[in-house]
Amino acid sequence: MPQYTAPINDMQFVLHDWLNLSQHYQSLGLEDFDQELVNEILTQGAKFASEVIAPLNREGDEQGAKLIDGAVTTPDGFADAYQEYVANGWNAMLGSPDYDGQDLPNTMAVPVHEMLDSANLSWRLTGMLNESAILAITKHANDELKKTYLAKLISGEWTGTMCLTEPHAGTDLSLLSTKAVPNDDGSYNITGNKIFISSGDHDWTDNILHLVLARLPDAPAGVKGISLFLAPKFLPKEDGSLGPRNTVTVGSIEKKMGLKASPTCVMNFDGAQGFLVGEANNGLACMFTMMNDARFQVGLQGLGVVEASYQGALEYARERLQSRAPQGIQEQNKKADPIIHQPDVRRMLLTQKAIAEGCRALALLYAQQMDIERFGEDTDKHQAKNVISFLTPIVKGFMTDMATEMSNLGVQVYGGHGFIREWGMEQLVRDARITQLYEGTNGIQALDLISRKLARDKNNMLADTFALFSSKIAPMTNAQAKAQATELLAEWLETATTLKQQNTVDLAGCAYDFMHYSAYCLLGVIWLSMADTAEKSKVASIKSGKKNTCDFYIKRLLPRKELFKTNLFNGADDLVEFTDSEFDYQ
Amino acid sequence: MPQYTAPINDMQFVLHDWLNLSQHYQSLGLEDFDQELVNEILTQGAKFASEVIAPLNREGDEQGAKLIDGAVTTPDGFADAYQEYVANGWNAMLGSPDYDGQDLPNTMAVPVHEMLDSANLSWRLTGMLNESAILAITKHANDELKKTYLAKLISGEWTGTMCLTEPHAGTDLSLLSTKAVPNDDGSYNITGNKIFISSGDHDWTDNILHLVLARLPDAPAGVKGISLFLAPKFLPKEDGSLGPRNTVTVGSIEKKMGLKASPTCVMNFDGAQGFLVGEANNGLACMFTMMNDARFQVGLQGLGVVEASYQGALEYARERLQSRAPQGIQEQNKKADPIIHQPDVRRMLLTQKAIAEGCRALALLYAQQMDIERFGEDTDKHQAKNVISFLTPIVKGFMTDMATEMSNLGVQVYGGHGFIREWGMEQLVRDARITQLYEGTNGIQALDLISRKLARDKNNMLADTFALFSSKIAPMTNAQAKAQATELLAEWLETATTLKQQNTVDLAGCAYDFMHYSAYCLLGVIWLSMADTAEKSKVASIKSGKKNTCDFYIKRLLPRKELFKTNLFNGADDLVEFTDSEFDYQ
Repeated sequence: MPQYTAPINDMQFVLHDWLNLSQHYQSLGLEDFDQELVNEILTQGAKFASEVIAPLNREGDEQGAKLIDGAVTTPDGFADAYQEYVANGWNAMLGSPDYDGQDLPNTMAVPVHEMLDSANLSWRLTGMLNESAILAITKHANDELKKTYLAKLISGEWTGTMCLTEPHAGTDLSLLSTKAVPNDDGSYNITGNKIFISSGDHDWTDNILHLVLARLPDAPAGVKGISLFLAPKFLPKEDGSLGPRNTVTVGSIEKKMGLKASPTCVMNFDGAQGFLVGEANNGLACMFTMMNDARFQVGLQGLGVVEASYQGALEYARERLQSRAPQGIQEQNKKADPIIHQPDVRRMLLTQKAIAEGCRALALLYAQQMDIERFGEDTDKHQAKNVISFLTPIVKGFMTDMATEMSNLGVQVYGGHGFIREWGMEQLVRDARITQLYEGTNGIQALDLISRKLARDKNNMLADTFALFSSKIAPMTNAQAKAQATELLAEWLETATTLKQQNTVDLAGCAYDFMHYSAYCLLGVIWLSMADTAEKSKVASIKSGKKNTCDFYIKRLLPRKELFKTNLFNGADDLVEFTDSEFDYQ
Repeated sequence: MPQYTAPINDMQFVLHDWLNLSQHYQSLGLEDFDQELVNEILTQGAKFASEVIAPLNREGDEQGAKLIDGAVTTPDGFADAYQEYVANGWNAMLGSPDYDGQDLPNTMAVPVHEMLDSANLSWRLTGMLNESAILAITKHANDELKKTYLAKLISGEWTGTMCLTEPHAGTDLSLLSTKAVPNDDGSYNITGNKIFISSGDHDWTDNILHLVLARLPDAPAGVKGISLFLAPKFLPKEDGSLGPRNTVTVGSIEKKMGLKASPTCVMNFDGAQGFLVGEANNGLACMFTMMNDARFQVGLQGLGVVEASYQGALEYARERLQSRAPQGIQEQNKKADPIIHQPDVRRMLLTQKAIAEGCRALALLYAQQMDIERFGEDTDKHQAKNVISFLTPIVKGFMTDMATEMSNLGVQVYGGHGFIREWGMEQLVRDARITQLYEGTNGIQALDLISRKLARDKNNMLADTFALFSSKIAPMTNAQAKAQATELLAEWLETATTLKQQNTVDLAGCAYDFMHYSAYCLLGVIWLSMADTAEKSKVASIKSGKKNTCDFYIKRLLPRKELFKTNLFNGADDLVEFTDSEFDYQ
């Protein structure tokens, strides 16, 4: 397994040089936060991710999570690492100060989360979903529930889960059938089966809190009849200590392609006691608080995998001696040259690098908007919320599609060795694959983007997103690059605006293309803007590295947008009209 | 696991309607072969693949191959299925009649091989490599060796392996260090370690024959000092019965991403007795007989996976009920519509279908050239050989890249269920992944194509390939489609011809792009030609299905060629000049 080293230099460049974090914190009135604190967090986070979490990854995949006598055990070292994580306060970074959280800006937490994702996707998932659960409870639960549960989730003493999917209700939650029957004491009895519940059980904490979607007896059909409940594994007593076991159990854990150290549980709720979160029949809105956060986090998982795969491939390409470079012998005293000198290997490595750095910048730009949504003035909050809404499906869909493409390039650089588990490169492919599927498949992300966020939006999401990216172009000093970025962004806006006029079916037919078209355009703007910023960097390798990687992106990856653009105006008639018998040919 | 059904209708359309097999056999003087016999073989092959081999696939992945006390065991049922395969004569299809082979045309065997690949890639690999070994021995070994070994390999009583790779010599065989020391009796003692030896040991047959690359004591350095040897697991006695165990043993078997039922062995040759095949120091040429056949066969494995994934995705998309179709309710009496009515799901399914059928036509066109190379007149033989040489890296590289892309689409259609092993869709992704790596990575295929087959070729390979594809355009009756195909093929020829003038480094930099550019162009010609042929079909679903799938390909997949074309003339300066420190950013 290649050693993971957190890309601190690049993170610092993006955060300090490109996003100007100090000024950003000042403008939000966050006087306590500065460059020094950010760097300290990056350093400590890097140390924890690379020294504690990353070494558990390969063996975790081999051992996998196990279900023994109804209880889940995770691989050796996972629980201890979590205790260290909690003890060091990492779990509380984003939590509300009212419940002992540190209330740090997202721009501080997100880089650390990326590191944990690179280090060990399976290990990270439990904490990640807990953070999303914390958000939902913070925003929607009443004070009594908060008092009982929130501090424990924020500290990490307990963890939270998301229980949405049922065997026949995945994408389409209107079909869900889990029932919640009211008790006299104001609680509910929840009955039903949930599948794909990540960390539905584990051996890290004494208690687990399930956020469960279910229907009340008199609920309307469809998604307007879904309510959100909170059902703990153990019901806490008045004093906060653990009371009786609730009737929620693990039916089985899934045998999966990857992410094997993460227990994916079938959860059986058998009249389990639960408590209503938010308004009755308003569960979906509550759950979307959790879901939208999780979607961003899954996008970040994608980035984590791209980075890890790039590092592994780079290391191997420098060491593996095979053949001579076509441009001439590179290592005269060796029998062959390192394969990094092969142009085709460079094509693969630079593709990974351009995508890793581009996606990192996108994720941190997004994190900056999260800061503004939390700490900014009302007008700014509103804009930031719009941008976040618009970018969420792009971050989730594009960055996870990239995780699969780039981790496959990583395997390819290793040749046959890439297929062997010991090297760890194929694990990245297997682990990455789930990110395109969970928290809404990427097809669903694409539909969300083109439908809710573009065509049916009344909140100016497109305009606000355009404004944000324009603001990254405005300070550019290289006139040619600035013109190029301006033109690119204008093309994107015009294309998106034109698309709005299409009917629902045609939109659905080109949704995937629009998601990728948008991503490549916006990453192009990001790259041109970053390279411009880097011209002023005092670090020589950043200055020329960003310039050359930007050139690579513009020349070799940005042209992909044309392919997707071609499909945007193809309509969907050919797709829809294909008949049943034409699909067959057996 | 979705049920596999052999695509017999499509195969018959391609073989009989598009390739006009009856006339083809007549022109080769193969009077015994006709449409009826082809159909009988397709029917029996389909039965065997779907009823005997496919059902072993899922459980085979879970059990995996095992090494116990130095001997490999394969999963339940694998060995029995092989006995049935051998007893039914499938193994002998292509073997020389001098050694009890059936000497069938490749156009008869290749469709059956595709079926076996779809059914179970792990199971198929042993027989596949044996066929390649048979070719090498038939062409290069002396009569005595043939007499001892060939009939047993052709019948399938024994199997053959390819022992090329060493830990430090994969792509670059010049580095290989296995030694062969001559004995007084004309045999050799072979010593060295080989890795990645598929079916290096197994429990299917009494004996295994290894084809091994090694160096003689006085051999020149580099690839001109490599010789090919034959070293059996058990040394046969004069009467053909098994004699003493040779000193070749299995060191270990690899833990892999997929293809788990196929034992990938580390083989230790410890003074093992071996016999020279062909001329001393000419081993690489001998091995390329085997390798080129194996490369085509690996491409065919890619097609097999695409087909299997398409079938699985199609079945699920028809059954899975989620949400309503945007074009209107499809199943009024159900709570939701099958997801096949979602335009984005159709985009994925039709992409799989267009690639499966296009690649199948390419593979069978290639098989027809194999027939001509074996049975045709000298001039035709020469042309066919040229076409085969040119197309081999395209078939191997493109069709296996498609296997990974298309099997990932298959997983995506399943949503979260695609990640669960039980469904079998993720296994296709894992199994497919090796096809991009073994028998030369796809990067090596791309270099082979642009360098040996295009820029440095003196044999008119490009011209002969152009001529073959022109001959598929000539009989087209739809004037517009014919003009389109003519223009596309001309563009490809012109582009390829222009490329020849580039220097070695620039060629290496765009090798991958040229392989894909060529594949999309040639598949475009194939699709237009097939759709034209289908206009005359009496089967309504073939007629309209081919037309509509062709339209889909031309509209939505052919534009990919532009992306690759853009990169063809970008040069490689940006790739080569990237400095070491610019790759880093930690």
